[in-house]
Amino acid sequence: MKIFRVEGTLVATGRIGNLQSHRLLVVQETGSKGKQVAVDPVGCKPGDWVIACGSSAARDAAGSKEYPSDLTIVGIIDYWEEELAGDRRSEDGAAQR
Amino acid sequence: MKIFRVEGTLVATGRIGNLQSHRLLVVQETGSKGKQVAVDPVGCKPGDWVIACGSSAARDAAGSKEYPSDLTIVGIIDYWEEELAGDRRSEDGAAQR
Amino acid sequence: MKIFRVEGTLVATGRIGNLQSHRLLVVQETGSKGKQVAVDPVGCKPGDWVIACGSSAARDAAGSKEYPSDLTIVGIIDYWEEELAGDRRSEDGAAQR
Amino acid sequence: MKIFRVEGTLVATGRIGNLQSHRLLVVQETGSKGKQVAVDPVGCKPGDWVIACGSSAARDAAGSKEYPSDLTIVGIIDYWEEELAGDRRSEDGAAQR
Amino acid sequence: MKIFRVEGTLVATGRIGNLQSHRLLVVQETGSKGKQVAVDPVGCKPGDWVIACGSSAARDAAGSKEYPSDLTIVGIIDYWEEELAGDRRSEDGAAQR
Repeated sequence: MKIFRVEGTLVATGRIGNLQSHRLLVVQETGSKGKQVAVDPVGCKPGDWVIACGSSAARDAAGSKEYPSDLTIVGIIDYWEEELAGDRRSEDGAAQR
Repeated sequence: MKIFRVEGTLVATGRIGNLQSHRLLVVQETGSKGKQVAVDPVGCKPGDWVIACGSSAARDAAGSKEYPSDLTIVGIIDYWEEELAGDRRSEDGAAQR
Repeated sequence: MKIFRVEGTLVATGRIGNLQSHRLLVVQETGSKGKQVAVDPVGCKPGDWVIACGSSAARDAAGSKEYPSDLTIVGIIDYWEEELAGDRRSEDGAAQR
Repeated sequence: MKIFRVEGTLVATGRIGNLQSHRLLVVQETGSKGKQVAVDPVGCKPGDWVIACGSSAARDAAGSKEYPSDLTIVGIIDYWEEELAGDRRSEDGAAQR
Repeated sequence: MKIFRVEGTLVATGRIGNLQSHRLLVVQETGSKGKQVAVDPVGCKPGDWVIACGSSAARDAAGSKEYPSDLTIVGIIDYWEEELAGDRRSEDGAAQR
């Protein structure tokens, strides 16, 4: 599983039927700048550090073997050294100066 | 799921039978220069920001467990800060000057 | 699916039985220097631009749910802006001068 | 399978039911700075070098076809040239000086 | 499938039962410095250039749908331009001087 920080909710009104009305969150992997979208069956809020699983496991984690997810949040981390990601972000900033 | 911008339709006349006549789109992942090809069961147009899922979920999303897709669009994002990708592209431009 | 250019045939005489005598091609992903090997049920020739799918879909695409492929060509692209890959290759060349 | 060094236990009290009370470890892939989270059915301790498998195999390795894991430790390496990772880390250090 | 060079045998005495006593090899992907571990049902020796497959196909290739592998060698390449990897390694060397 990988570690992500929750950024916020994603609004995608036009979607395939199998996605149903599950909640989709924009998440950012720790140590990476790219954003992804994860299904949230746990109930997270922006700023939470979470673990999410991919592969076929993401489907069962989202509720059923047929659900079309390749990234589903499976747990909220009690404590995560947020500094790590913060440091990397400031390194990026330094490089642009 | 990852976030992509739709570039246009891909024409591939010579294809395996299982691909049928599903619509294939060239898509570009946000923050990346690489292009990929996704099956589109939603009905997107060039410029749309979409979420697409991979893994075995891409198959059910495309309509059946047997369909040979590893990337299928599952939703159109209502609003996406297009600027993000734009900024990165201008950084690349700056590096070449 | 990802976009590859066909380089040529791979000869691997010592192989597991399940691979059978399917044709294996060395392919190069667009915008990348790494080479991979794909099963070819379409009938491609060197220089063709193709789309190939991975994940479990690569198995059905190669002919059966049991076939051990994680990358199978599913279509030949009618036209691809070959220049894109060419430009990147010349950038690499420039960097070495 | 990839090679990881065990960092420590991850505490995630809020988790989906299917995760049960399996032990989750923070692990670092050799030659990479990113941390991931793996299910541990072997019984590792911090500092151990382990092999972990992903994909659908991670599920059976964690105990059942339904378990939602995409990274499960499958073995402890008897001896691993820890120096390799150490060298890379000191290179990173040198670059920041 | 990806292309790897066999480095040697991996000894992991503490392993989950499903791994059985299958032979595990340390392999290095061509053009990459990272090492991975693959199941070897073919019978390779150090220095061999091989193709290995991942995803769920790695499981059948290792002998059964239940086997917990995400990387299994499926063939030995008759001839591979070893120079390619050699060149990259010497570039790395040059950068450290």
